[in-house]
Amino acid sequence: MAGTVAVIHIGQLVTLAGPQRPRVGTELRELNVIEDATLLVKGGRVAAVGRDAELRTRIPKQATVVDAEGRCVTPGFVDAHTHLVFAGNRAAEFEQRIAGATYQQIAAAGGGILRTVALTRAASEDQLLAMARRHRDWMLRGGTTTIEAKSGYGLDDATELRMLRVQARLNNEGPARIVSTLLAAHTVPPEFTNRRDEYIRWMVEALIPEVAATGLAEYCDAFCDDHAFTVNETRVVLTAARAHGLGLRLHAEQFRPGTGAALAAELGAATADHLETVTEETLGLLRAANVQPVLLPGSVFALGRTNYPPARKMVEAGLAIVLATDFNPGSSPVASMPFMLSLACLEMGLSPAEALTASTLNAAWSLGLGDTIGSLEIGKQADFLLHEFTDYREIAYFVAAPARPRVFVAGKEVTQ
Amino acid sequence: MAGTVAVIHIGQLVTLAGPQRPRVGTELRELNVIEDATLLVKGGRVAAVGRDAELRTRIPKQATVVDAEGRCVTPGFVDAHTHLVFAGNRAAEFEQRIAGATYQQIAAAGGGILRTVALTRAASEDQLLAMARRHRDWMLRGGTTTIEAKSGYGLDDATELRMLRVQARLNNEGPARIVSTLLAAHTVPPEFTNRRDEYIRWMVEALIPEVAATGLAEYCDAFCDDHAFTVNETRVVLTAARAHGLGLRLHAEQFRPGTGAALAAELGAATADHLETVTEETLGLLRAANVQPVLLPGSVFALGRTNYPPARKMVEAGLAIVLATDFNPGSSPVASMPFMLSLACLEMGLSPAEALTASTLNAAWSLGLGDTIGSLEIGKQADFLLHEFTDYREIAYFVAAPARPRVFVAGKEVTQ
Repeated sequence: MAGTVAVIHIGQLVTLAGPQRPRVGTELRELNVIEDATLLVKGGRVAAVGRDAELRTRIPKQATVVDAEGRCVTPGFVDAHTHLVFAGNRAAEFEQRIAGATYQQIAAAGGGILRTVALTRAASEDQLLAMARRHRDWMLRGGTTTIEAKSGYGLDDATELRMLRVQARLNNEGPARIVSTLLAAHTVPPEFTNRRDEYIRWMVEALIPEVAATGLAEYCDAFCDDHAFTVNETRVVLTAARAHGLGLRLHAEQFRPGTGAALAAELGAATADHLETVTEETLGLLRAANVQPVLLPGSVFALGRTNYPPARKMVEAGLAIVLATDFNPGSSPVASMPFMLSLACLEMGLSPAEALTASTLNAAWSLGLGDTIGSLEIGKQADFLLHEFTDYREIAYFVAAPARPRVFVAGKEVTQ
Repeated sequence: MAGTVAVIHIGQLVTLAGPQRPRVGTELRELNVIEDATLLVKGGRVAAVGRDAELRTRIPKQATVVDAEGRCVTPGFVDAHTHLVFAGNRAAEFEQRIAGATYQQIAAAGGGILRTVALTRAASEDQLLAMARRHRDWMLRGGTTTIEAKSGYGLDDATELRMLRVQARLNNEGPARIVSTLLAAHTVPPEFTNRRDEYIRWMVEALIPEVAATGLAEYCDAFCDDHAFTVNETRVVLTAARAHGLGLRLHAEQFRPGTGAALAAELGAATADHLETVTEETLGLLRAANVQPVLLPGSVFALGRTNYPPARKMVEAGLAIVLATDFNPGSSPVASMPFMLSLACLEMGLSPAEALTASTLNAAWSLGLGDTIGSLEIGKQADFLLHEFTDYREIAYFVAAPARPRVFVAGKEVTQ
């Protein structure tokens, strides 16, 4: 938290002020931009936004004044789907895939998720924390101030809890806010290969109650896929999680329709994530149940694929879309939210404004934080970015730019 | 230039040592990596490379010691095709294109190259320098230490020379080396629309001799395309440039085969750039004439297209491929060489090693600098990067990572 901070001479102050709910349809483009603006922060919260001329007399003498010199200010990015904590990396597999190896061949050679599981199990809590901190710092440099982070490279009691504790420690040390999700249902661990029912029973009867009791996770997620868990298995896991008070998120329909999106609607999940293969019919189910789709173009790009999720159809269907990185060592070693905006525009046909709303305010709502962060409105936590750019569209336009936003969390500059 | 610098404890020192010529075929993968290495720099040049244990006794007491802590060192990137100097940006057109506007519609509405020409003509030399410096700084942050930069947004005597002077000033102020190319044959300026022959005659009889006499450009380039200059027109321009001692580069076959690659071979150009539509037959001509293809995947990506140039076929044809950004405000607002490596691997099937050679040593050769920069061999200028990564493959793998290499030019740290 900071004292009083006044950011003046903002060329474009993108407030995203508006209705207190996720934005849909044309609302996604309504950024509520104030030009020649001042942003006033008191006690870590937005105290006022308005034209420089209007607010000039309201800036206290003792305020810290930041001169934006005509540049653009937006809310900090909220990355609502990441696998932040893991050991090692899979650059060797990246090279193998480019040379033509299939995901199946890599997995058969000991690669894939299970390689990361083995490395993560072998790492101490402090080692995992140091590695996660590096990734968190990358995200902060790109302007991400809130990060959803999933377990799921442990798949046993000790390591799943270790990952969640690392996430809690990262959240406590700040400055980025970490929202924790239990993803023990990421894949079946090797020791349960021929006993998948036992693994599911263990999650339902032991792990989920334990995690819920510790308060180490707010959400439970599952990977519903032919290579992970069936719809029925996923239903069992997530129903138990819901009964223990956890919110629900769901890896759904990444590789084949019918793998989880309808279940997300049935269970009232907060989000259905991926959805590369979702059908239009299913989009209606998500809309009716107020499930937010989380679009993860980084994993499409980094897998060298082109089947981006049908974002425009989702917007037309009235869905409150969210844009996230899916940062992970396998399918999406991509930590940058600005690059997600570029992919959203270039590959999914979203406008820069739609992409920005999806990656800030709508993402905040998907984490139950829509009344706290995601827009720059009076009373909200002052998480914001002072960009190198004068126009918010440049965030997507200058693809992969080594630009450096100045990053503020609760009004305090935390630029790395 | 610096005194003696010793970079010790390098986990992977990627030297690219080898034959003193552009690399082709399997040579592209021969990075000559030394593990647990030391790099010794004296007077701005590489004085020694070897194992830590071997070089320990050769580090002078007064040397500046940099501990790489196991991380990776590579040569600095050489970006052999950029349009670094321009005024304004085209983020509005980016938005229009996403919304479905065609390049032709945008041009008809006053957009496209001619919009940048109008803004650039209206900008003073100091204004252009300030804007170019910003882009140069982005490139430096991404690890680019040498930048080829083209004029071509002036298209009149005063502005073309102003752009070239800005490039010369940037080169003089350092730390990045700027290699200048005259690109007055970028498009026909509006005042010559119905007198294209006169524009060509002016280039040949006035501008090229003037520029050659000033020494403000080392190369001459032309955009051979249905919307720019025909093969015959391009031949006239480049033949004149060659007669005045300028090296030749050529925008060729971006949108249609038969637009310039054969001409590049005929004229003995240093490079043929773009080549998205080049045929296999033409690759043989380039090989026979030792023309280096410059691959520009950023412009394919940022135009939302998928017709990446046939890099693997070029490697098989024995061509000494080069990888560059094509940084420009229209088709490739992409300043990051690491992102080019990601595109090269994911979209063009190059291995991380091939992509690295193409973006350092081979790029240096394409600029006539292969004996000076591009590899870390004794006697060469010590332009190098100390990455955040331990493995060079991570440069391409961690797509668009907000990572920050420490950047050294002539042995001196210039990290931004």
